[in-house]
Amino acid sequence: MKTSVHGTDPQAAVPPIGGLDARAMAAAQQRLDRLTKPPGSLGRLEELAVWLAGVTKEAQPRFPRKTVVVAAADHGVAAAGVSAYPQSVTQEMVRNFLRGGAAINVLARAHGAHVVVVDAGLRAPVEPPEGPQRTSYFDRRIGAGTADMRTAASMSPGQAVAAVQAGLDLIPTLQESGLDIVATGDMGIGNTTAAAAITAAITGSGPEAVTGRGTGVDDRGLRRKVEAVESALARHRPDPTDGIDVLHKVGGFEIGVLAGCILGAAAARIPVVLDGFISAAAALIAQAIAPNAAAFSIAAHRSAEPGHGIALERLGLHPYLDLGLRLGEGTGAVLAFALVEDASRLLAEMATFDEASVSGPQE
Amino acid sequence: MKTSVHGTDPQAAVPPIGGLDARAMAAAQQRLDRLTKPPGSLGRLEELAVWLAGVTKEAQPRFPRKTVVVAAADHGVAAAGVSAYPQSVTQEMVRNFLRGGAAINVLARAHGAHVVVVDAGLRAPVEPPEGPQRTSYFDRRIGAGTADMRTAASMSPGQAVAAVQAGLDLIPTLQESGLDIVATGDMGIGNTTAAAAITAAITGSGPEAVTGRGTGVDDRGLRRKVEAVESALARHRPDPTDGIDVLHKVGGFEIGVLAGCILGAAAARIPVVLDGFISAAAALIAQAIAPNAAAFSIAAHRSAEPGHGIALERLGLHPYLDLGLRLGEGTGAVLAFALVEDASRLLAEMATFDEASVSGPQE
Repeated sequence: MKTSVHGTDPQAAVPPIGGLDARAMAAAQQRLDRLTKPPGSLGRLEELAVWLAGVTKEAQPRFPRKTVVVAAADHGVAAAGVSAYPQSVTQEMVRNFLRGGAAINVLARAHGAHVVVVDAGLRAPVEPPEGPQRTSYFDRRIGAGTADMRTAASMSPGQAVAAVQAGLDLIPTLQESGLDIVATGDMGIGNTTAAAAITAAITGSGPEAVTGRGTGVDDRGLRRKVEAVESALARHRPDPTDGIDVLHKVGGFEIGVLAGCILGAAAARIPVVLDGFISAAAALIAQAIAPNAAAFSIAAHRSAEPGHGIALERLGLHPYLDLGLRLGEGTGAVLAFALVEDASRLLAEMATFDEASVSGPQE
Repeated sequence: MKTSVHGTDPQAAVPPIGGLDARAMAAAQQRLDRLTKPPGSLGRLEELAVWLAGVTKEAQPRFPRKTVVVAAADHGVAAAGVSAYPQSVTQEMVRNFLRGGAAINVLARAHGAHVVVVDAGLRAPVEPPEGPQRTSYFDRRIGAGTADMRTAASMSPGQAVAAVQAGLDLIPTLQESGLDIVATGDMGIGNTTAAAAITAAITGSGPEAVTGRGTGVDDRGLRRKVEAVESALARHRPDPTDGIDVLHKVGGFEIGVLAGCILGAAAARIPVVLDGFISAAAALIAQAIAPNAAAFSIAAHRSAEPGHGIALERLGLHPYLDLGLRLGEGTGAVLAFALVEDASRLLAEMATFDEASVSGPQE
């Protein structure tokens, strides 16, 4: 049984998404309590281990094949002067990803993760990649950048559905070469403005509360961002309960692809590690489409963007790291891959009290 | 020029400790600002990279040889019923470390770190190790467990000096087989009570503010811990400005050894990653002996123990992780090794704007 993601044509189909597996979670918790440590003393690593069991339905899951999907697209709203950087940087950074020189490449190498770059809608496509072996490239161009949300819907409803469908379909494609866990990352000059608009639309928070400095705009740039969000929401009045409506009116192509990845991974019971604000906005879209999708995601970190915390609250997610990151690309999510690896190894490799002949609590 | 750590005989000698290297820090900061990312967008990883440069005097330091020193000892105050576990667990866990089954072993394997177990004063020594290759063992026994601080000084002044000296001397020994960064870890049933007494003595905070549940004592156990700290401080009145005085009156052998490691690493310009509350108490002792020692340490994480935050405030350190850990052994510090590795790799491996032909900020 597939759920339609949009009431009217065109539509995409989301495979059924289950719930976390209580039996595997109980088995993982029981094992954690037999390991040579005071109960609960590994703190959130124990919570993480139990969640990983619940997603995978395995009492001792392992995650050797890690991938970060970095979806990139351009944003018409960049014309409003909402970024400290020119729009050309989106494409320049995609080239940097493909050559292996960006922060996400360095961190992915450090944490044994594969980088998958998806062109979801750059203004112009990049040349075929000749990058290092760990970087893959997928052409999933939905358009040549979105329209300026201040004056038009960012994309058509059909494009919004196509973006989500592209992300959905990417998961089985990635599974063909092995996928145990997936992180979401993004690149798109102007996309914190889109994420702010999505967060305001879905949570009902005011534009000023959800809009931050992104790559580092000054006070005037911040004012232009807030005004862009205000005017887009006033013009389009997106339906907060309709993920496709929000996405097409104020979203971005990369955000739609990431929403699809989140849905596709949830359906495939593959844990999702969300990076920062853009990924959280994508998760809000995914949650509006399938309410239980967010249960298959964790928030890697709390970014410096004020809207991020508001989005996470709506998603019911508590970030694991708080390092003041505001780079995107999936950088924070790949840092959290280390915690996933740690949690799964502790669960599988630590000795129990019996095995190690260590005494339990007194009395 | 060596500084005496104690005004009277016996005394130990601390090699001179310098300051962070401003030139290497400036060079690291300049490189960070040329890398393909918005300035400061890697948040605390950038702060960490600059600090690592300052410690090592290298603009692009690397840390392939990581070691966690797990110092273990028994505590006479355990007789006061301050732990949820019997005192035998200290020795049983040391055997577990040597066989590679404890949390610290699992995490050290995951993060490419060497585990060095130091018997600083178990009640009875363990058999020679036959553990996995990554675990080393050092006999640095200062005594067969401390005395009960409620009724006697934990150790003699001479033992306190010997413990610090053993830690000081361990650093050059570890350097012989390669040491780029060192983490501090601990094992000792009852040692959160000693850490609480040290923190209260040095910071002037009340025993109730610095005493927590450790491995998980109930309300009555917590009351016994607070009373033990209160009675020890009332009886001994340690001099908060004299690290050896505090250590011998209310400390522990493993805490003295760790204080020595912190001093020795600072003198050798090797970065120190402090684990939790016990390590912070050791750093307070080190700071009392040599005020600039703490500049060569970072706090890996904020533990669940309430005294930890108070100790870190006095040390001027801001923890990188907040995962609710309360296990000790160096587990949190080894998690932070990943951040050190990430920060140093980003500094060394990311492309600059020029190298990648990426545009800088507008205007």
